[in-house]
Amino acid sequence: MANVTLKVEGMSCGHCVSAVEKAVTGAGASGSVDLAAGKVTVQYDEKKVSLDAIKGAIEEQGYDVV
Amino acid sequence: MANVTLKVEGMSCGHCVSAVEKAVTGAGASGSVDLAAGKVTVQYDEKKVSLDAIKGAIEEQGYDVV
Repeated sequence: MANVTLKVEGMSCGHCVSAVEKAVTGAGASGSVDLAAGKVTVQYDEKKVSLDAIKGAIEEQGYDVV
Repeated sequence: MANVTLKVEGMSCGHCVSAVEKAVTGAGASGSVDLAAGKVTVQYDEKKVSLDAIKGAIEEQGYDVV
């Protein structure tokens, strides 16, 4: 399992937190969002999911992974 | 029909716009949100809906009508 903290720009409210968490879950990982810090901590199995896929899922929701 | 523009605090993103518009529609009115201005213009039939009910529906979603 890998644990990575991503810096994500554009999250402004609770709806955004839900959208990002759903994106992470949908990509096959689990994650928790720190809205105030603009950070998303993701935990995933590197054998099953790539970090790029997780980042892509977040960006598809309209946020920038920086 | 009445047309009222409400000042609403706490709307920060497109999800908020959707949530507020849905609240207004759910209250039996129609509305459009100006996110940048923090304003919601509602149109409603005073015989069927009260302005208080519309404000209440918006506040139930976590926003302040000021």
